[in-house]
Amino acid sequence: MSAMLGQTILTANAPAPELIDEFVIANKILFHQNVVDAFGHISVRHDKDRNKYLMARHLPPQLVTVADIVTFDLDSNPLTHQEMAYYSERFIHGEIYKVRPDVVSVVHCHARPLIPFGTAKGARLRPIYHMTGFLAVGVPVFEIRDAGGMTDMLIRTPALGKALASCLCDKAVVLMRGHGATMVGASIRQAVFRAVYSAENATLQMQAHQLGQDGEVEFLTAEEGAKVEQWGRSIDRAWALWKDQVSS
Amino acid sequence: MSAMLGQTILTANAPAPELIDEFVIANKILFHQNVVDAFGHISVRHDKDRNKYLMARHLPPQLVTVADIVTFDLDSNPLTHQEMAYYSERFIHGEIYKVRPDVVSVVHCHARPLIPFGTAKGARLRPIYHMTGFLAVGVPVFEIRDAGGMTDMLIRTPALGKALASCLCDKAVVLMRGHGATMVGASIRQAVFRAVYSAENATLQMQAHQLGQDGEVEFLTAEEGAKVEQWGRSIDRAWALWKDQVSS
Amino acid sequence: MSAMLGQTILTANAPAPELIDEFVIANKILFHQNVVDAFGHISVRHDKDRNKYLMARHLPPQLVTVADIVTFDLDSNPLTHQEMAYYSERFIHGEIYKVRPDVVSVVHCHARPLIPFGTAKGARLRPIYHMTGFLAVGVPVFEIRDAGGMTDMLIRTPALGKALASCLCDKAVVLMRGHGATMVGASIRQAVFRAVYSAENATLQMQAHQLGQDGEVEFLTAEEGAKVEQWGRSIDRAWALWKDQVSS
Amino acid sequence: MSAMLGQTILTANAPAPELIDEFVIANKILFHQNVVDAFGHISVRHDKDRNKYLMARHLPPQLVTVADIVTFDLDSNPLTHQEMAYYSERFIHGEIYKVRPDVVSVVHCHARPLIPFGTAKGARLRPIYHMTGFLAVGVPVFEIRDAGGMTDMLIRTPALGKALASCLCDKAVVLMRGHGATMVGASIRQAVFRAVYSAENATLQMQAHQLGQDGEVEFLTAEEGAKVEQWGRSIDRAWALWKDQVSS
Repeated sequence: MSAMLGQTILTANAPAPELIDEFVIANKILFHQNVVDAFGHISVRHDKDRNKYLMARHLPPQLVTVADIVTFDLDSNPLTHQEMAYYSERFIHGEIYKVRPDVVSVVHCHARPLIPFGTAKGARLRPIYHMTGFLAVGVPVFEIRDAGGMTDMLIRTPALGKALASCLCDKAVVLMRGHGATMVGASIRQAVFRAVYSAENATLQMQAHQLGQDGEVEFLTAEEGAKVEQWGRSIDRAWALWKDQVSS
Repeated sequence: MSAMLGQTILTANAPAPELIDEFVIANKILFHQNVVDAFGHISVRHDKDRNKYLMARHLPPQLVTVADIVTFDLDSNPLTHQEMAYYSERFIHGEIYKVRPDVVSVVHCHARPLIPFGTAKGARLRPIYHMTGFLAVGVPVFEIRDAGGMTDMLIRTPALGKALASCLCDKAVVLMRGHGATMVGASIRQAVFRAVYSAENATLQMQAHQLGQDGEVEFLTAEEGAKVEQWGRSIDRAWALWKDQVSS
Repeated sequence: MSAMLGQTILTANAPAPELIDEFVIANKILFHQNVVDAFGHISVRHDKDRNKYLMARHLPPQLVTVADIVTFDLDSNPLTHQEMAYYSERFIHGEIYKVRPDVVSVVHCHARPLIPFGTAKGARLRPIYHMTGFLAVGVPVFEIRDAGGMTDMLIRTPALGKALASCLCDKAVVLMRGHGATMVGASIRQAVFRAVYSAENATLQMQAHQLGQDGEVEFLTAEEGAKVEQWGRSIDRAWALWKDQVSS
Repeated sequence: MSAMLGQTILTANAPAPELIDEFVIANKILFHQNVVDAFGHISVRHDKDRNKYLMARHLPPQLVTVADIVTFDLDSNPLTHQEMAYYSERFIHGEIYKVRPDVVSVVHCHARPLIPFGTAKGARLRPIYHMTGFLAVGVPVFEIRDAGGMTDMLIRTPALGKALASCLCDKAVVLMRGHGATMVGASIRQAVFRAVYSAENATLQMQAHQLGQDGEVEFLTAEEGAKVEQWGRSIDRAWALWKDQVSS
């Protein structure tokens, strides 16, 4: 395995094997939970060096193995696994890590229920229940035309990555018009949890608007959302199930 | 196994092994039928002591085994499995058992289709077909703000549990705004049946409102609902299938 | 197996084993295709005696085996498998066979997408595509209140069965308000095909009404529907797939 | 296997085995991705002779094996596998290959989310995100009544095939009112990719219209769509996942 992981494992600064294992499982969970299909990716900040992050090479998350985890610097240059294909949108990750010291993990996805919220006129993703208190601080929508004009929609450059990170600001989730969404967390588990439940929230919110008189829905208040966010145990409980589901 | 079950098995008042087996299967059925995900829980009143109930320790229902079933008193203090993590919302169960002598089992869940009915303005869950006659007596919506002001939405205290039980009153199901739902039954099987078909009803009702002129739908009358509730065999027939599905 | 099938196998009039095998597979297909859950049933006219029909005893379709197939007369009295539990709604089947000599198989189900069409004000199930030409002759909705006043919604008596058969008239499908649907065919395969695609049509039609300006949708005309019904090969092609899916 | 494949394998012009393998996998992927059910079909232009194409005999795609691949001329006459049943709508494929030299593969399907877009008044399938830039050039709707009057909806003749090809024109996808859709690509993988993501787009677009104020949605512009179409790697990344899913 040391050969597979490339040079990093030979140094004292190699990421902990437990981190790598958790990260591979996260890739599979994102697929199993319908957050990603063949596209989308997750990264985690390097546990030994805050100025690096880990992410798979150019692969569908479901197919990622320990051997596929590349180390990048925060400019998103690969430090291992040279001369392979990488995700073209890795700048999403690197640029967010630069400006958000609190962030340890980033998920980028095209989860189905989130797409309408990024494209429908006037739509706003808001916390419909206690699983998504992290949405109560607001969910900005990134319009790539503001930063790049007419593009192929992808965050292919450091400049576009910086613009997205700026739009995300201090929030947990940013929607991307005509593209998908990006969510961040203080751990792999929190980023995955936020990805899964952002999509759940979107599904439920769409239905609630259709059901309510004049589309009206009672959302969590900012205070309720903040209190919800003080929980601790939920994320590990969900992780226990999701890990079991992708392991069996 | 006696060791795993803790002290209760050593006494004449230990729950019947058949009850425990049925209860573990109920946990798995709730997951398989999409009533619960990593969250939600089911309890059953102790078969040898009406002032106790059984519920899993803090675990996703799908992962519950015989060894994880804790005995609680009706104040929701654990009598076995000391010093472990328990569901923080166990007061939902204890407080309902106190005021509803007819109730033998309680399910608390965040089943997806029920969430919009607890949050959309003016929405009312009503019996759309003969599988859900138990909804005909009405489905109240619990607003936690009335009982607790701004909270983290969870029923973490006896006082909130009492308020929820009071809102449930003599009904079969109570929706919880921004949170989920709680349903009760005269047996494990009935509580599970009501949970599954409450959610089915919600899905169908949402579609019917979208389809009907001005959203109008012909529901079961109170009399039809009451007659439907006199059936006996349906619940065991559903259980036979659901048990088979989680056993194979 | 002779013992299991009871007395019929001992006579020259026993149903052909191939018919029984096909019938058991039909039960499993209906579950796999989400036409039935624990509830719903299929019957087939006896191949040696037009005045009898075959149907499982009181079981979820998915659990039906060769040993569970009961012979009934057209008054829905069991001629084999005495003193067991039977579907309480077997009169749906017997009464239709009496008045529809063209019918060889009957499916009764609560397929989800059909429920809103039986309960939403003004809704009409109509053929949205070429898989459902059999809907072009019209789909009546049975209101049990007209025949039985306030009931438990079930077709528990010959009189209610006759009323349903009368409402079905010469059509392929009848919706039942607050309950489900019944469809007929000239073979097991045709009845199953009509059940599966009635439900598909309902799903697609609901979406089309939501998408169209003022809810308008272009359906098949009566003539298109009639021409579609002249195909032959479709049903066997679908059966080949469905049988493979439940066999592997 | 040579016997099974018939005469083509004996000549220098036999299709490459790798092409046949890829083609069989494509059939299974279309089923696994819910593009086809028992119905629908894919073809590929013969790699050794541009005036021929390959397609399965009359079978559900999921059941297709190497032995079932028939060679047709562009008039859709079978050149191998004589006296078997073929898809009655093979003229869709032959007639498109005649007028679209750029096309290497054709998919015809009844993918659920596409049906409402072909039947709802005023509906227009438009690119909601960067996975479907190929829709930006427009998606025509084929009305078979214009070409054939009252029919059984099927493209059973060369004349109807020509009319459909003419409606498709230089586009990637054509919807067929009351029937389904046909999509083309420069490779098997591109045709499959377009089929999968056309259906995804339809699902998301329906939701976005329901969510947006007055149903308004921000689609990709023509320029964005064109830029998106310049990517290369996406299709192979999706194929890697989809192939893995049907192989395991």
